[in-house]
Amino acid sequence: MAEWIRPSVAFWHTFCGNGADPFGGATKFWPWRAPELSAMEQAEAAMRANFELLDKLGLDFWAFHDRDIAPAGATLRESNANLDKIAKLASKLQVQTGVRPLWGTAQLFAEPQYMHGAATSPQASVFARASAQAKKAMEVTHLLGGENFVFWGGREGYTSLLNTDMGREQEHLAQFLKMAAAHKRKIGFKGTLLLEPKPKEPMLHQYDWDVATTLSFLRAHGLEKDYKINIETNHATLAGHTMVHEMETARLAGVLGSVDANTGDSLTGWDTDQFLTEPRETARIMSVVLKNGGLAPGGFNFDAKLRRESVDVEDLVLAHVAGVDTLARGLRAAVAIQEDGRLAKLVTDRYASYDSGLGAKIEAGQIGWTELEAWALEHDEQADHLSGKLELYERIEAQFI
Amino acid sequence: MAEWIRPSVAFWHTFCGNGADPFGGATKFWPWRAPELSAMEQAEAAMRANFELLDKLGLDFWAFHDRDIAPAGATLRESNANLDKIAKLASKLQVQTGVRPLWGTAQLFAEPQYMHGAATSPQASVFARASAQAKKAMEVTHLLGGENFVFWGGREGYTSLLNTDMGREQEHLAQFLKMAAAHKRKIGFKGTLLLEPKPKEPMLHQYDWDVATTLSFLRAHGLEKDYKINIETNHATLAGHTMVHEMETARLAGVLGSVDANTGDSLTGWDTDQFLTEPRETARIMSVVLKNGGLAPGGFNFDAKLRRESVDVEDLVLAHVAGVDTLARGLRAAVAIQEDGRLAKLVTDRYASYDSGLGAKIEAGQIGWTELEAWALEHDEQADHLSGKLELYERIEAQFI
Amino acid sequence: MAEWIRPSVAFWHTFCGNGADPFGGATKFWPWRAPELSAMEQAEAAMRANFELLDKLGLDFWAFHDRDIAPAGATLRESNANLDKIAKLASKLQVQTGVRPLWGTAQLFAEPQYMHGAATSPQASVFARASAQAKKAMEVTHLLGGENFVFWGGREGYTSLLNTDMGREQEHLAQFLKMAAAHKRKIGFKGTLLLEPKPKEPMLHQYDWDVATTLSFLRAHGLEKDYKINIETNHATLAGHTMVHEMETARLAGVLGSVDANTGDSLTGWDTDQFLTEPRETARIMSVVLKNGGLAPGGFNFDAKLRRESVDVEDLVLAHVAGVDTLARGLRAAVAIQEDGRLAKLVTDRYASYDSGLGAKIEAGQIGWTELEAWALEHDEQADHLSGKLELYERIEAQFI
Amino acid sequence: MAEWIRPSVAFWHTFCGNGADPFGGATKFWPWRAPELSAMEQAEAAMRANFELLDKLGLDFWAFHDRDIAPAGATLRESNANLDKIAKLASKLQVQTGVRPLWGTAQLFAEPQYMHGAATSPQASVFARASAQAKKAMEVTHLLGGENFVFWGGREGYTSLLNTDMGREQEHLAQFLKMAAAHKRKIGFKGTLLLEPKPKEPMLHQYDWDVATTLSFLRAHGLEKDYKINIETNHATLAGHTMVHEMETARLAGVLGSVDANTGDSLTGWDTDQFLTEPRETARIMSVVLKNGGLAPGGFNFDAKLRRESVDVEDLVLAHVAGVDTLARGLRAAVAIQEDGRLAKLVTDRYASYDSGLGAKIEAGQIGWTELEAWALEHDEQADHLSGKLELYERIEAQFI
Repeated sequence: MAEWIRPSVAFWHTFCGNGADPFGGATKFWPWRAPELSAMEQAEAAMRANFELLDKLGLDFWAFHDRDIAPAGATLRESNANLDKIAKLASKLQVQTGVRPLWGTAQLFAEPQYMHGAATSPQASVFARASAQAKKAMEVTHLLGGENFVFWGGREGYTSLLNTDMGREQEHLAQFLKMAAAHKRKIGFKGTLLLEPKPKEPMLHQYDWDVATTLSFLRAHGLEKDYKINIETNHATLAGHTMVHEMETARLAGVLGSVDANTGDSLTGWDTDQFLTEPRETARIMSVVLKNGGLAPGGFNFDAKLRRESVDVEDLVLAHVAGVDTLARGLRAAVAIQEDGRLAKLVTDRYASYDSGLGAKIEAGQIGWTELEAWALEHDEQADHLSGKLELYERIEAQFI
Repeated sequence: MAEWIRPSVAFWHTFCGNGADPFGGATKFWPWRAPELSAMEQAEAAMRANFELLDKLGLDFWAFHDRDIAPAGATLRESNANLDKIAKLASKLQVQTGVRPLWGTAQLFAEPQYMHGAATSPQASVFARASAQAKKAMEVTHLLGGENFVFWGGREGYTSLLNTDMGREQEHLAQFLKMAAAHKRKIGFKGTLLLEPKPKEPMLHQYDWDVATTLSFLRAHGLEKDYKINIETNHATLAGHTMVHEMETARLAGVLGSVDANTGDSLTGWDTDQFLTEPRETARIMSVVLKNGGLAPGGFNFDAKLRRESVDVEDLVLAHVAGVDTLARGLRAAVAIQEDGRLAKLVTDRYASYDSGLGAKIEAGQIGWTELEAWALEHDEQADHLSGKLELYERIEAQFI
Repeated sequence: MAEWIRPSVAFWHTFCGNGADPFGGATKFWPWRAPELSAMEQAEAAMRANFELLDKLGLDFWAFHDRDIAPAGATLRESNANLDKIAKLASKLQVQTGVRPLWGTAQLFAEPQYMHGAATSPQASVFARASAQAKKAMEVTHLLGGENFVFWGGREGYTSLLNTDMGREQEHLAQFLKMAAAHKRKIGFKGTLLLEPKPKEPMLHQYDWDVATTLSFLRAHGLEKDYKINIETNHATLAGHTMVHEMETARLAGVLGSVDANTGDSLTGWDTDQFLTEPRETARIMSVVLKNGGLAPGGFNFDAKLRRESVDVEDLVLAHVAGVDTLARGLRAAVAIQEDGRLAKLVTDRYASYDSGLGAKIEAGQIGWTELEAWALEHDEQADHLSGKLELYERIEAQFI
Repeated sequence: MAEWIRPSVAFWHTFCGNGADPFGGATKFWPWRAPELSAMEQAEAAMRANFELLDKLGLDFWAFHDRDIAPAGATLRESNANLDKIAKLASKLQVQTGVRPLWGTAQLFAEPQYMHGAATSPQASVFARASAQAKKAMEVTHLLGGENFVFWGGREGYTSLLNTDMGREQEHLAQFLKMAAAHKRKIGFKGTLLLEPKPKEPMLHQYDWDVATTLSFLRAHGLEKDYKINIETNHATLAGHTMVHEMETARLAGVLGSVDANTGDSLTGWDTDQFLTEPRETARIMSVVLKNGGLAPGGFNFDAKLRRESVDVEDLVLAHVAGVDTLARGLRAAVAIQEDGRLAKLVTDRYASYDSGLGAKIEAGQIGWTELEAWALEHDEQADHLSGKLELYERIEAQFI
């Protein structure tokens, strides 16, 4: 089961989240963030807490942003030094425990210099700073044996088209991603590069809106061989899609890379990043994973946070346990549905007219409108109205939830 | 002004709309749909009314679905005969008036045989019927001198992934569009082929979700040279985008073909297809048209309908007059903004760091992460925080609305 | 279990729904709607089919609109005669089977005369016609032994405030509901009068937006003793609420009358009225029913329809069976959660500070800001930060789904 | 014009907003927040800046939260002392300038003790602290000559009903508001008490969802004489309403108190609090103000913030100027529409059938269903289908925008 799920703890939510939101300050006062500790001491304590949690949960993976595991310094040089120091600690703890990063990433959206975007900032100097930071983050991920490297373009988008040259910004983003792919080859990093779509928030419109938009961008810039996609449930729903739609779209294009496992609230319009505990949704997600033959080297990263009002350390443990249990239950349901075979057979039978004869010729591109018109005039009646029978499918599915 | 706007009357809403909605029947009892007339007599009366309205409004274009201008018969052969007869009448009236179709299209979503889709139906026989119907509709559009041919995939999508083979359905759709492009060449039709995105409704998910999704599809199937895009305001907002975002996305990719001019209600989740009367939105739309150097051979088709409760014939005239006036006012505002030049200069200046030096090298792809890191370490401070000044842009824009 | 659920078949969706939607015509060609039958013959056949389905499903309740069970005539007199005839048939079949209406209602939104509303039409003559129709419908419901009478204000709302006198329209609606309550007393009908909130669709804004809006209206007009509320899942979510929020709001105000059991799609903005098959949602719904001590004389009416593409008669049976099974499973889960007792105890303990001392005085209104300030200055530190522990609650709940 | 608009600067957004959002830190480094200043020095500098801005803009009103103008101390006593000191400074500056508060309020949502709500916290000690804080804030508002006192229940709501006793929480909120009304009378404060609805954010569901919900709550607890409503544009749209709907709902109930002037983005699901610059929306808002005979003692408070990327001090001035200009333009348009009179006459004529005869009897409650049925049977035909003519209304309105 661990092979199929590959669950990972997200360092930022779990060890950096303090409960602040746009309407109020911190509510969580974790021991590893005690105010008497210096920033670097906090970083070390948090990293030790991370490995303690991984150990208690029995999980093999974690995921991180560069600036979450080590504090920014006054200069890039100093930030790099901080990062090196914490990476060394993480490396030591990894050796002791056998744990490794599912993925690393560069946080290119929190500092004020990135307010207009990083690779899409109108300031070339910001592009340069972002490149330097991402380069370092990729190298640290490589050093720690990370299996993937993720780009979430937090502020790669716009607030308004009035002051934005969207064409030029997207060209810059493409250049940035080309440089990343080139650097990956240069340093011999074997992990997968992943783009993470999100439609909006913090920007009013983000360039990697959803899987299809991201695919369109990759195809327009010849990047489709270099990148796969990391899909997040709450981002999918903010874009107006089901998670399963996004996963299936990526799977069909051969770019289903990894999953940020969480859920949102269907009635709110922002990212709540809750732990997923709903059985049916999880079973559907796992059905796509089965069809994909698993996610490795990707996995399920718990990009999920406690509610602002959940302030006990034990809540962190409880939430992750609930998350892992839910994924396991979903996987079992998906396997049972697959073994039962009824749903798959219904779908296969539904499309049977394309398996031979006229349908097969259509699929093979061996026929055109002229021949099809001739066929239609020869069989000049409406087609049979075959029922879609969706209620039957839902009833069968429900037996396994 | 007529050159830039190229306004068109949409036959279906204007002459076929009867006010029925999911909760009630017809409210509009137009003279050209008098119950004592046969279906073909109604079709003829409606076509004459169409040309009378075009004449009264002084417009040069109209747009149509095959099954709206002529009723379906019991068989395809009969439907084709009906269509030929009405097309002949339209052709005669066109000669008299100098009016011609902005575009034609095939209605492949209303009949029950298309309930699961047309090109994406699981039944190959439906694909064949749809091909025959679209072939005929394209030929009639060609005959009438139409400047474009549109595909709106009304039911090309799904209700649920549980009973859907999305990969196979999308392959079928690609085959269909390849056949269309081949047939266009075969018959010498010079008009533009246009895809019209819509995210949902009637299906829960439609394959041509938005411009980016449609571009991704075209690129995946090598169709990007054969198709442009017809963008509808209300479809844009249902997808979570502004109309201007959709138009700009298409313009940047060179596929901005035509516009379905209407508006929706931002607080409802379905297509209301209202006539656009809001000045600011229209000015923004026209700014993209200016940047695109116009829309021809596309134009602005009033894909808009009267409210269900507007039941007087004069309401049809009033609504179209308001629509044309609004577009004209928007065009004037966009031209004034362009001539003023302040907004454009603010944007150009904002990206000036990419015009030379480091930025120019980034744009030219002459530099990589290693060099950029070196630069960043040499200039080891945060970039200046340049204000986005969006409130200033908005204030300047407001002076022209 | 039947006592708690009281499931009911909705005549309109099940026997009148033909699959038409705004983008296409009928897809379902039921035997009781055979075109060779007259309107009254269809009505009789449909009524017999209704009782056959109720018998096959073993259910005790059905629900109806006046115009669904009997066709409108050319005049009100004729419509009434049609209704009397069909009601007589229904009455006979009820006696044979022991089945009775959960509720009846008047359909005051489908005919063109109701396009601007019924009780809120700007035309007083429409108000009069609506009153006559509703009076008759209430009398027929009384005759058939219906346990409730429902008002869903399909077009009681507006398309735009530009042409609407909202104040006057709402006064008219209040007058209408006062007349209904008076007529109920006059004829000795003992059933409950129910209002059914819906936020929008078909109108852009409907007056009975949600439970709270409906309560506000009832309170403003002194009607809160005369009406309870019929809550529909898909209407709740269109209003931006969970179904459980709406039910709990009604329960706390003592007006939880009945439930229209269905579900919508959280990603679409219109009413899809699907059969509910999701286990967690149903368990939550049933938890409110338990707290309310049941719903009688209300119940769960399957205000749900087959997908447009489900066209086999057996689909109607399958869907209802799935619906009943889901409600039963939800009830079992809710009972198990109640018997387990952990969730209820967590909540009770959470509010314990209000059970005595300072909190009890606050609840009793025995204390004011001056005394509370004195208390706060005496205890001059921040309160303990007690964790909300929502992840724990979710984990416990999941064990019972 | 100043009499009708009564514009007010919101202290919190303008002098406390630093650009932080859930994905990044401060971007605005205002001189009055220089890090070398102590918290109290910053508060004093910000207050002086407030009066400088009011002077430059020529505005007469400002609005504040207690904790925004003066920093929280370690204890309530210390917070109160800070507040007294800053209030004294504000009072002095007010005397010099003739400016006064449109309103004051207590910030009961930012500190961690309020994470579960203030008056609706499950901890009675939090209720006590909130009472003490609100009491002090009301007294300071009274001292400064504030014309209103506002309650925005930032966290009065819930994250999930699983761990919430909604009935008990709402009872506590009612007690709190009763105490506030009693304290107002006790201290002789003559200003209006205002509730400010918001549907969600930061909580998933807030108790003062919209105007109707707030009215329902006030009516249920006998508070409708003591409170009016402060309506915010962006809150209206988050609740699924137009601003005009909310204002009209409040106006009809006699509780339209004041307006938080801003706008949101119709495509995002969170509060963006942008300055309103759209002419048509503003004209519609002002039409309700005209019907209400003005807003005094309420007004238009600019509860609006610069975009995160707008970081120049001059942006603050530009944005407020744009805001005032927009309101002035809206007022002019509304007056012109009123003086033109066509729209008002169309509406009056539309409802004329209720001015005499049958309609007048319905409005007067002098007739019931029995008489109306008799009338309908006597006039046994459908009513005339009068067109709603909304397109005509829109065309007339557009002439004044």
